[in-house]
Amino acid sequence: MRRDLQPLFAPRSVAILGASNDAAKWGNWLARGALRGAHRRPVYLVNRNGGEVLGQPAYASVGDLPESPELVVIAVPAAGFEQAVDDALAMGARALVGITAGLGESGSDEARRAELALVERVRAAGAMLLGPNCLGVFDAESDLGLSSNEFPAGSIGLISQSGNLALELGILSRNYGLGFSRFASIGNQADLDLAELVASYAVHEPSRLIAIYAEDFRDGRDFLQAAAEADKPVVLITVGGSEASRRAAKSHTGAMVSQHDVVSAACRAAGVHLASTPAEMIDLAQVLLQPRRMAGVRVAVLSDGGGHGAIACDVAEAAGLQLPRLSDRLSAELQAGLPDTAATRNPVDLAGGGEQDFDNYARTARTLLESGEVDGVLMTGYFGGYSQYSEQFAGKETDVAHAIVRAVAETHRPLVAQAMYHDAAPNLALREGGVPVYATIEAAAAALAALGLSSDAAAREPDRHQDAEAVEYFTARELLAGAGIPFVAARRVTSERQALEAAGEVGYPVVLKALGLLHKSDAGGVKVGIADEQALVWEWGDMQQRLVPPECSIEAMAPLADGVELIIGSRRDPRFGAVAMVGIGGVFAELLGDQQVSLAPVDHDGALRLLASLRSAAMLKGARGRTPVSLEAAAAALVALSELAAARPDIAEIEINPLLVTPDGALGLDARVIPVEGGANAG
Amino acid sequence: MRRDLQPLFAPRSVAILGASNDAAKWGNWLARGALRGAHRRPVYLVNRNGGEVLGQPAYASVGDLPESPELVVIAVPAAGFEQAVDDALAMGARALVGITAGLGESGSDEARRAELALVERVRAAGAMLLGPNCLGVFDAESDLGLSSNEFPAGSIGLISQSGNLALELGILSRNYGLGFSRFASIGNQADLDLAELVASYAVHEPSRLIAIYAEDFRDGRDFLQAAAEADKPVVLITVGGSEASRRAAKSHTGAMVSQHDVVSAACRAAGVHLASTPAEMIDLAQVLLQPRRMAGVRVAVLSDGGGHGAIACDVAEAAGLQLPRLSDRLSAELQAGLPDTAATRNPVDLAGGGEQDFDNYARTARTLLESGEVDGVLMTGYFGGYSQYSEQFAGKETDVAHAIVRAVAETHRPLVAQAMYHDAAPNLALREGGVPVYATIEAAAAALAALGLSSDAAAREPDRHQDAEAVEYFTARELLAGAGIPFVAARRVTSERQALEAAGEVGYPVVLKALGLLHKSDAGGVKVGIADEQALVWEWGDMQQRLVPPECSIEAMAPLADGVELIIGSRRDPRFGAVAMVGIGGVFAELLGDQQVSLAPVDHDGALRLLASLRSAAMLKGARGRTPVSLEAAAAALVALSELAAARPDIAEIEINPLLVTPDGALGLDARVIPVEGGANAG
Repeated sequence: MRRDLQPLFAPRSVAILGASNDAAKWGNWLARGALRGAHRRPVYLVNRNGGEVLGQPAYASVGDLPESPELVVIAVPAAGFEQAVDDALAMGARALVGITAGLGESGSDEARRAELALVERVRAAGAMLLGPNCLGVFDAESDLGLSSNEFPAGSIGLISQSGNLALELGILSRNYGLGFSRFASIGNQADLDLAELVASYAVHEPSRLIAIYAEDFRDGRDFLQAAAEADKPVVLITVGGSEASRRAAKSHTGAMVSQHDVVSAACRAAGVHLASTPAEMIDLAQVLLQPRRMAGVRVAVLSDGGGHGAIACDVAEAAGLQLPRLSDRLSAELQAGLPDTAATRNPVDLAGGGEQDFDNYARTARTLLESGEVDGVLMTGYFGGYSQYSEQFAGKETDVAHAIVRAVAETHRPLVAQAMYHDAAPNLALREGGVPVYATIEAAAAALAALGLSSDAAAREPDRHQDAEAVEYFTARELLAGAGIPFVAARRVTSERQALEAAGEVGYPVVLKALGLLHKSDAGGVKVGIADEQALVWEWGDMQQRLVPPECSIEAMAPLADGVELIIGSRRDPRFGAVAMVGIGGVFAELLGDQQVSLAPVDHDGALRLLASLRSAAMLKGARGRTPVSLEAAAAALVALSELAAARPDIAEIEINPLLVTPDGALGLDARVIPVEGGANAG
Repeated sequence: MRRDLQPLFAPRSVAILGASNDAAKWGNWLARGALRGAHRRPVYLVNRNGGEVLGQPAYASVGDLPESPELVVIAVPAAGFEQAVDDALAMGARALVGITAGLGESGSDEARRAELALVERVRAAGAMLLGPNCLGVFDAESDLGLSSNEFPAGSIGLISQSGNLALELGILSRNYGLGFSRFASIGNQADLDLAELVASYAVHEPSRLIAIYAEDFRDGRDFLQAAAEADKPVVLITVGGSEASRRAAKSHTGAMVSQHDVVSAACRAAGVHLASTPAEMIDLAQVLLQPRRMAGVRVAVLSDGGGHGAIACDVAEAAGLQLPRLSDRLSAELQAGLPDTAATRNPVDLAGGGEQDFDNYARTARTLLESGEVDGVLMTGYFGGYSQYSEQFAGKETDVAHAIVRAVAETHRPLVAQAMYHDAAPNLALREGGVPVYATIEAAAAALAALGLSSDAAAREPDRHQDAEAVEYFTARELLAGAGIPFVAARRVTSERQALEAAGEVGYPVVLKALGLLHKSDAGGVKVGIADEQALVWEWGDMQQRLVPPECSIEAMAPLADGVELIIGSRRDPRFGAVAMVGIGGVFAELLGDQQVSLAPVDHDGALRLLASLRSAAMLKGARGRTPVSLEAAAAALVALSELAAARPDIAEIEINPLLVTPDGALGLDARVIPVEGGANAG
């Protein structure tokens, strides 16, 4: 349904059923809230005992009112709710707010049926019902505050299935100078539901952003359509990511909780931003309420101090942003006017240049925003801190803030800031100018990332090893075999004749490998399952023609179908020395990235623990009916490799991929050893 | 090295070389800092022009001092640094702090060699050097503040490679009433390095927690050993998680940055807590400074309000905590004294019970902590809010806070709180009593999770589908084949004779499947590659004996080696209706969990996008030399399945696993259809 909700949010008159003098009762809070808007509309208090409530005559029944109340709020016990609704409808009410709980959400079929029947009567009367089991309604523009608390006024239109959460969102909004244009507590959504409210907020001009806490989406697709059609940002918190929260929502509102992955996928498609917590929601609101978005996810980090800059880079990348290395031209332009020690490649570290001349902040920010090399800027650290020292500094730093605001406005590219002095005058000036400022770098990075969400960022390619001068293949095999790791039989060959001889020795079927290529199987440099001499002659010729390898290897076929392919290896860290690594190998190695590392050497128990910590560990233990493979043999190979790596500081990297682990043992099928640059020959 | 660092942190006398009257210079800030400790020790200011500095006579050279200065801080230009060090050593200085920058970190070999030679002279003289390129030193107990700023005093021993970061950590600490026992800025670590400082802090009684920001670990293993031996918590921020931060650290201090996964694994092994940001570090410090740890990761969530409780559950589970369903006995005990609408299974929602009687918070918290069913409690939401209304409420609520503190102390189990009114008196009382209180639920959950880090939490088993009444296998195949999805040839058989006949029809080699089992391949209910009649007779007998299946299927062998096995399917969400799913299938399906969902139906482009969004998408495009498989065929099958799901609300779930996708097409190898409970027959 898509009705005009003016009777709910901007009624001409209001009646409170269950108004009370008892300061511990909802009927008291609601009456006081209603009376705060008495300069805008008549407020009628109804209490079945009549008398006076809050110093105003109370009516004994809604039927006694001198006029038809446009909005009626019902806070009577559950037993009297139906009667109250019918009375209000009889008096011509156009909108009802059901505070009363213990109705449809109680779980009984009878209660649910009664609620449905009541809604039919409401609709037949041309009226609408918010709730029941809701906590009220608020509209800043119409001075309507029918709720237990007051909220700050602002541009966020809030729809919530929890009252305390609305309270927390209000507190968090205030921290950023934000507030609510409207708040509707939806309760059981018996009549007015999420979708209808979203559609209404979408055409409500003062609501510039729609914030939602929902446990139950009712008609999920209707909601998505309303959200997708809203020409303003929509931010959603929902639950159901854990068994416990599904349990909770069910008992809280009898909610039907959707699977979290479904909600995520559907929201992404509809352009709805998801938040996990109230703090995240208001952090997002701050950034989404400013008008600029990013065409991509390339950002520059700007700081005065290396630590803040470096941390910001890691946090930004983890949030999905990219930090391109800036060009020579741009780097030189940034460098002019900064200390020699300044970093200008991204991150940009003023290295004391901000202290020397506050203007360097604005100049650098503008240069970055204008460069075209990034889509936005993440400023972090000290800015605003100078204002702590003197009023003169505060004034100068605030001028710089205004210059940053101008640069952002003129380039139409966003800048988001984290500041340790986030409430200092210069940072308040940034916020006022539409530049979001956060207390933590994690919030600032997430905010900037949200601005690039809709852009089609290039999918990231998995990291490829740099091509490095590897030790010759057979030397590598011998080194590792010498350490006690079994390898599949292999012969070095450089001619067809040698290949046929070697195949005779190892026995058909054989494997033919071209040596001297980085990713042999990528380049088609490995041919497995060559059945006989004739096939070998053909494959030999084909490979020579395609790859012209300097030499090849003929190897026995390993029982691939009986085992699991691992990758085991080591690399040398500049500060921690040799590191051992194990992961799922073969063609899956880089795709899955299921690897674990540990300082080398590892002992047998350590190796077993490392294997057990793989995500795919179940595969080794015989997933889905397979025979378990020998963890002992895999661990022994890892121990041997790690001891070799620890004992040989001249080796930079070792990789056995795959190490075939079968129920009976482990067998190296390939080997790669890279010496330290300029080090001794690792062979 | 492990020296006694008393001359650095608690010197008997201090000299500042480069002391200055210019308020914009380090020599000015340092001199002022030193003079604040003048009641504890003589302070000598040295300026080559002599005269007066800060109203005190300045010496023209360190050689003119009336006594040997125990600690000498050097803030002279780089060109004069060596001379200043030699002069200080000649005067018998025991500790030096090198503020001067532009030395070893500048990157030239010559500068690095000169720094090394200088350190040798320092050590030969029996002295020690902090820095150079550092920002000073602070010790609360000895009133030593040789730095550009003042810090709050407390129990955190800080070691940092960034000065501004120390400043931010100071501000964040103050928010929780925390502060620093010591701070050392390590700069180039030319002499005193991270490991030696950690070892020194480990035996420094007032430092109850060691907080570190390090870009370069120098001797990484020495550091790990010192950290592992420290009988107090160690929290570390480091960088290197992104190419950009490695670039930054290199230019900032010439740091050798270790790979992030290496640091993580090594720190985990040494019991070091990792933080990503300053806020995370101080959040962790708050919780780690209280003495209680968790034996496991089972926690109960406690709130007064369903929304807060539900959100906390999701956030807690994402942080690695478990939320067990509470027992009937415990649930009943909790329920007594709470409103009927209260939830008591975990999360525990007082549902207004806190408002009715504040004591319910303390009673419920104690019952949970004493129960033995959880290792800790996460309290979230409104607590502290009542104190906003009146002093009487504030007093009563603070009494409840004290009762919670007692329950925690007596049970030795931790309670961590998030509170929207986190600075209200009752919450300050909690903090004072060693109950951490956070502003955000994400911080509180992460803190509680950190207390269970060392426990060996049970590894989580992947979710198994509930056994449900599936539609008969051939009916399912027909339904899907009717929708246009090709299936491998198959014949239903119930006897050996039928099996042999069927195998003749589909052609050897064949597959034998036992029907009516949930995970056929787990149970050994699938036998592939049966070569001939003799083999089939044997396999038939074996399977009958093991599984006694009511019926079986004989199927053609699909070209598994040429393709990729996907899983495609649908399920029905209560609020969003039919949802389509695609992922990597076969034995990897559950292990990898690489799946994507979308509302059904999906169109052809949508299906292609869904396939492209898989983590393993590269496998479909021909990873490592394989022929790309037909994305068109996979997409067509997904479109057909999703349209069927959307059109049939009586179907709860469809699964084709595997769908074999080859370069030429897609072929269903298995099918499973589950009707909606009580729905019409899906066939």
